[in-house]
Amino acid sequence: MSEQNVKIIPLGGLEQIGMNMTAIEYGDDIIVIDGGLAFPDEDMLGVDLVIPEVTYLKENKEKVRGMVVTHGHEDHIGAIPYIEKELNIPIYTTKLTMGLIDYKLTEHGLQDSIRRKIVSYGQIINLGCFRVEFIRTNHSIADSCALAIYTPAGIIVHTGDFKIDFTPVYGGVIDLQRFGELGKKGVLALMADSTNVERPGYTPSEKTVGKTFDHIFDDNRDHRFIIATFASNVDRVQQIINSAYKYGRKVIVEGRSMVNIIRIASELGYINIPDSTLIDIDEASNYPPEKLVYITTGSQGENMAALSRIAASIHNKISIVPGDVVIFSSSPIPGNEKSVYRVMNELEQKGARVIYHDTHVSGHACQEELKLIYALTKPKYAIPVHGEYRHLKRHSELAQEMGIPKENIKILTCGQVLEVGEDAFEVVGKVPAQGVFVDGLGVGDVGNIVIRDRHRLSENGLVVVAFTLEKGSMQLLSGPDIVSRGFVYVREAELLMEQCRDIVSETLYECLEAGDTDWGRLKNRVKDDLGQFLWERTKRNPMILPIISEVE
Amino acid sequence: MSEQNVKIIPLGGLEQIGMNMTAIEYGDDIIVIDGGLAFPDEDMLGVDLVIPEVTYLKENKEKVRGMVVTHGHEDHIGAIPYIEKELNIPIYTTKLTMGLIDYKLTEHGLQDSIRRKIVSYGQIINLGCFRVEFIRTNHSIADSCALAIYTPAGIIVHTGDFKIDFTPVYGGVIDLQRFGELGKKGVLALMADSTNVERPGYTPSEKTVGKTFDHIFDDNRDHRFIIATFASNVDRVQQIINSAYKYGRKVIVEGRSMVNIIRIASELGYINIPDSTLIDIDEASNYPPEKLVYITTGSQGENMAALSRIAASIHNKISIVPGDVVIFSSSPIPGNEKSVYRVMNELEQKGARVIYHDTHVSGHACQEELKLIYALTKPKYAIPVHGEYRHLKRHSELAQEMGIPKENIKILTCGQVLEVGEDAFEVVGKVPAQGVFVDGLGVGDVGNIVIRDRHRLSENGLVVVAFTLEKGSMQLLSGPDIVSRGFVYVREAELLMEQCRDIVSETLYECLEAGDTDWGRLKNRVKDDLGQFLWERTKRNPMILPIISEVE
Repeated sequence: MSEQNVKIIPLGGLEQIGMNMTAIEYGDDIIVIDGGLAFPDEDMLGVDLVIPEVTYLKENKEKVRGMVVTHGHEDHIGAIPYIEKELNIPIYTTKLTMGLIDYKLTEHGLQDSIRRKIVSYGQIINLGCFRVEFIRTNHSIADSCALAIYTPAGIIVHTGDFKIDFTPVYGGVIDLQRFGELGKKGVLALMADSTNVERPGYTPSEKTVGKTFDHIFDDNRDHRFIIATFASNVDRVQQIINSAYKYGRKVIVEGRSMVNIIRIASELGYINIPDSTLIDIDEASNYPPEKLVYITTGSQGENMAALSRIAASIHNKISIVPGDVVIFSSSPIPGNEKSVYRVMNELEQKGARVIYHDTHVSGHACQEELKLIYALTKPKYAIPVHGEYRHLKRHSELAQEMGIPKENIKILTCGQVLEVGEDAFEVVGKVPAQGVFVDGLGVGDVGNIVIRDRHRLSENGLVVVAFTLEKGSMQLLSGPDIVSRGFVYVREAELLMEQCRDIVSETLYECLEAGDTDWGRLKNRVKDDLGQFLWERTKRNPMILPIISEVE
Repeated sequence: MSEQNVKIIPLGGLEQIGMNMTAIEYGDDIIVIDGGLAFPDEDMLGVDLVIPEVTYLKENKEKVRGMVVTHGHEDHIGAIPYIEKELNIPIYTTKLTMGLIDYKLTEHGLQDSIRRKIVSYGQIINLGCFRVEFIRTNHSIADSCALAIYTPAGIIVHTGDFKIDFTPVYGGVIDLQRFGELGKKGVLALMADSTNVERPGYTPSEKTVGKTFDHIFDDNRDHRFIIATFASNVDRVQQIINSAYKYGRKVIVEGRSMVNIIRIASELGYINIPDSTLIDIDEASNYPPEKLVYITTGSQGENMAALSRIAASIHNKISIVPGDVVIFSSSPIPGNEKSVYRVMNELEQKGARVIYHDTHVSGHACQEELKLIYALTKPKYAIPVHGEYRHLKRHSELAQEMGIPKENIKILTCGQVLEVGEDAFEVVGKVPAQGVFVDGLGVGDVGNIVIRDRHRLSENGLVVVAFTLEKGSMQLLSGPDIVSRGFVYVREAELLMEQCRDIVSETLYECLEAGDTDWGRLKNRVKDDLGQFLWERTKRNPMILPIISEVE
């Protein structure tokens, strides 16, 4: 590696799955940007979370100077406790973001072992050879920032997740001037948010949602409100509270993550709740329904979230009554559409009126906003981040429109090592960067084989074939017994089960007669013969599990 | 039941799941409208298809006069072979629809046993006390029709799936005059398509897509095209062929359902393919790539469809090369978004350019079109059909805007029996109308218990505990042996497996010492003790399957 070149290594977020983590390396120094988790795709059966692999960082642990965090969303901070258990590195970020990280570390018992430092917008911290400046941006959570990373090879600007909001609900407008100053100094590489690159124009201001809320509150003075949104969208919650206060309603917060985040944001001064506006759920019965607003989790149709439980009539404190107004202040994340619509249908069936048009704006920049950032920073190189591949590809086209030569734009995949310098811009290697599955308490103990087995079991179920052999003589002492789960409704398939027993008996008889008593071969013969029979009879392919016991 | 009232009984299509089938009953006569299937929700693990339950029709078999079919889409005809195996009733429909039904019946060996009669627009057939008139409509497949059902209680108009297309690609404009005439005569009840009721305005004409194709063909003269659409959208295929012919390209059709439907539509004259435009896939190598258009299945990201196989590089005849233009001429059906985006990402990663904006129009009526049908037919009662509950609810609001009193509108659920007459409009009963699961060759042998087991297996996998007892003495002769699948990666969990063995050994020892040798209780103790241990250690809840063998 040339002494003037810096390495950029995405360790999470540049593939379809959205956990964000990037390493920046120069000589003996590495810094880590963000430590996000991803929620599993539907084919990752039984997996709770996916976190980035830290193998490369562990192998270079003595080089890692710290983690800088752009904002407090799960896909940027959710894996931090897991990462810190492996690395124990200091964390630098803004106040609200740190408040949310603190909560996570405490949950994992790490609150006392990890060094943390809160930084302000405009502040610069030194981490080895790097200096990192935190720049104000707008996003769907307060205290979001972009990073200017001063490296020996030049300045790298990472936008984090951002939009341009000229009338934000909390705090100031994104520091466009600073982006311009950096551009004048000379930006080596820009890593910018690709989420909305397919959308023309500008993302509307968060405040537009507040106006919609006012209209809805005004039109529905006689009805109770239930409003679901992302727990982390503190500004959205603020606007709901504003409208509630304006129209003389009390607010009840429901859902664990919602309660936690509002508590943290409120303690840190990021949300302003007028006195006696917030009431406990158990006080609700003291007020007429039309004087109440519930703010809940579950806007993505998540099975166990508050709104889903309300919709399914299994919430222990809230029941839908005809006339209730339920607002989805969110868009379905791709993959969640069907669950969201299911919850909407359930709510409407119980007599609620569901409103979900114009009740949400995105937190990500559209095309013209991205162009503005390119115009201000005028980077030499562009590395689109944060999006599916099709977004990164469109982003690279937008960068070309903005004058970046095609050869100066790179779409990276996880683990690729990009060397960047005045005269260098190429992938020079690859480090391990798989997603690691978290299932229950296990981190990484569920891999592809386990997932493949779960798929097979979920599609076709299981047939266990158990029999006992006499040690030495290899005579069949009992069985074969057939037990199935998830295969067919057994009461109606007694004949089939009997036939299975006959098939296996015959196979065993043949093998044992022929003196073939190798357990591996016996099991394979049983699997083959029974599998073929079941396929012919049912066109299904259950997992077949022969269990041999041996008795002296 | 009063002699002047008719019964309307939805047997499939009025719930979230989209199989369409409705019975109309009067006295000793029943007719069936459509016989559609649904594709399983993602939580119906391993299920291939869902079909309507025919219990009520079987119980009243002697009353059923026949089935009238509105159009040839799977959710209206896909279950017909299964239904016919139970009922054997004559089928009445238009030519193309019948061609598609013929193909299905032949696949199931029913081509000679079911009576069928092709009808033309305007034709009226007599079925018991009913007369059924077939009325021309527009939709995303040719030969679609609405039905006017003349009953002793009055006229019921069923729109089928429809839109208003003043410039259709094939055939004429929807017969609005006839809807008006029926309105003048007096329509008792209108059952109209709710799919697009949330969308204001009008659905654009199918021909607008043809213009977009021409522009794309014009802009990409140097690139090969792959265009994915619904196999059943014959007019869309026609327009692709038109553009291909205009720009001097050969067309290759790929994907089983696409090949079949185009063959049927072409034989029946519903698609017009200029001579030597269609070539076999094996002839493709005789032409430069930029002179080719592939029309494929897989526009919904279906795993095994042609386009998904191409994207995953497992198609044996088509490989993406950089520069290929892939057009999705479709919208993702809710639930399919993530699969569709996955395929798009894979294609782009291999260098294809994916186009999916403005390349599709819906086949369903928007708000203004629905209002027009209400204005023409002026029904006394409205029964919204074809949509999720939230759509049916919006539809009922639209009907109110059109002057139908609220009490004259009913949203039905499957199996409800609605009695309709000059002075009657109420639900008077309920008949069995569950979805029936088809899995492999089995129809109905996979029910809720099997699905529940598959869920458990898919989330947490399985732990089998096998041991052998001596008959009589109930001594433990071998085991316990522990085998797991889909639970943890066993090589890294040897200690855990050993602990499992110890736990079970202890449990067995205790039980057998205490003389408790009831197999049921033994199994439950093993499940409880091992389950608790595994939950504490892993926070997972695998299915535990104790298998006891007995040896003399």
